[in-house]
Amino acid sequence: MSAGLPRRGRRSGTENTRAVILSSARKLFAELGYDATSLRGIARDAGVDSAMVHHYFQDKDGLFAACIELPADPRTVLAGVAHTAPEVRGEALLHAVLGLWDSPAQPALIALMRGAVSSSSRAALLREVLIKRIVALLLADLPGDAAAHRLRGSLVASQLIGLMISRYFLKLEPLATADHDDVVALLGPTVQRYLTAPLP
Amino acid sequence: MSAGLPRRGRRSGTENTRAVILSSARKLFAELGYDATSLRGIARDAGVDSAMVHHYFQDKDGLFAACIELPADPRTVLAGVAHTAPEVRGEALLHAVLGLWDSPAQPALIALMRGAVSSSSRAALLREVLIKRIVALLLADLPGDAAAHRLRGSLVASQLIGLMISRYFLKLEPLATADHDDVVALLGPTVQRYLTAPLP
Repeated sequence: MSAGLPRRGRRSGTENTRAVILSSARKLFAELGYDATSLRGIARDAGVDSAMVHHYFQDKDGLFAACIELPADPRTVLAGVAHTAPEVRGEALLHAVLGLWDSPAQPALIALMRGAVSSSSRAALLREVLIKRIVALLLADLPGDAAAHRLRGSLVASQLIGLMISRYFLKLEPLATADHDDVVALLGPTVQRYLTAPLP
Repeated sequence: MSAGLPRRGRRSGTENTRAVILSSARKLFAELGYDATSLRGIARDAGVDSAMVHHYFQDKDGLFAACIELPADPRTVLAGVAHTAPEVRGEALLHAVLGLWDSPAQPALIALMRGAVSSSSRAALLREVLIKRIVALLLADLPGDAAAHRLRGSLVASQLIGLMISRYFLKLEPLATADHDDVVALLGPTVQRYLTAPLP
């Protein structure tokens, strides 16, 4: 990655350290995925001591969330959804996602989506969040193996992401200004089918 | 729009003329929408004679397609779809859209989508295409009034756009590498419901 360039020396805990760690973490999470990336490896790439990484970001989850500038912790937003009965989880998920987008977090979410569509390393980061954190959380207690969960997760994501792009970026009416209840009535059956109905 | 600036004089047909016309057309289509934008108004804004606009772009449709750099004319791509029986139109549409994205047109489509997500005037142009050309074409012969068609069109768009983002940008597996037939089997019922099923 930095072949041919002189190795950076260890840095002291300056203002800049946080940014350097984030830059290395973004690179490695995008290249290797969440699982294969270690805090040690990030510290090495950034030329800092591992203790610095813990100091600024606590743990791998905290660092990862900072990398993609998530405006809210998915575990908090989705905690209520993950505990709903499976047969109403589609609409609960839609309500939670619409609530998040129509909140002060909206500009950060727009920036996150723009980043993912314009840069493949940003896309890789968002993919990791969706798969490792959001999908895992939502489907954990539902029947099916990991492959089935991945398939269902990617289908759910396809409808939710399309809703967000249509509503907040393209502003396609009437979806763009419809009440949450109306959107949930229209798209709920789709999300529910992807979560729990038998698939071909 | 150019208040306070000296009016540009009429331009002769230089290399630059085409770009100047395109720039005015993008601005006006985005600000006013397709219907309210006239070739005359574009020519005026660009400081060229209307004949120049016809010379470079033939008609309003041609100019509009050039504005958004559509890699294919939607009428050609969707001609086969619009003539299918209503009850199989969902899967026909998915096949056509996947065929287009997995063709040499893919880079241009990726650029089109990136533009729409990163710029609100580009988003406005894509919205115009979707509403005035694609949706109108696909739903023309189906029951329902204009408002119902708009609603159905925005729902269809939400699923198709989400599929494209998930498959070609985020590369969410297994959707990213699934065969067209598998994708159609999974998402076909959704698109079909949005096109023809009773909605709440």
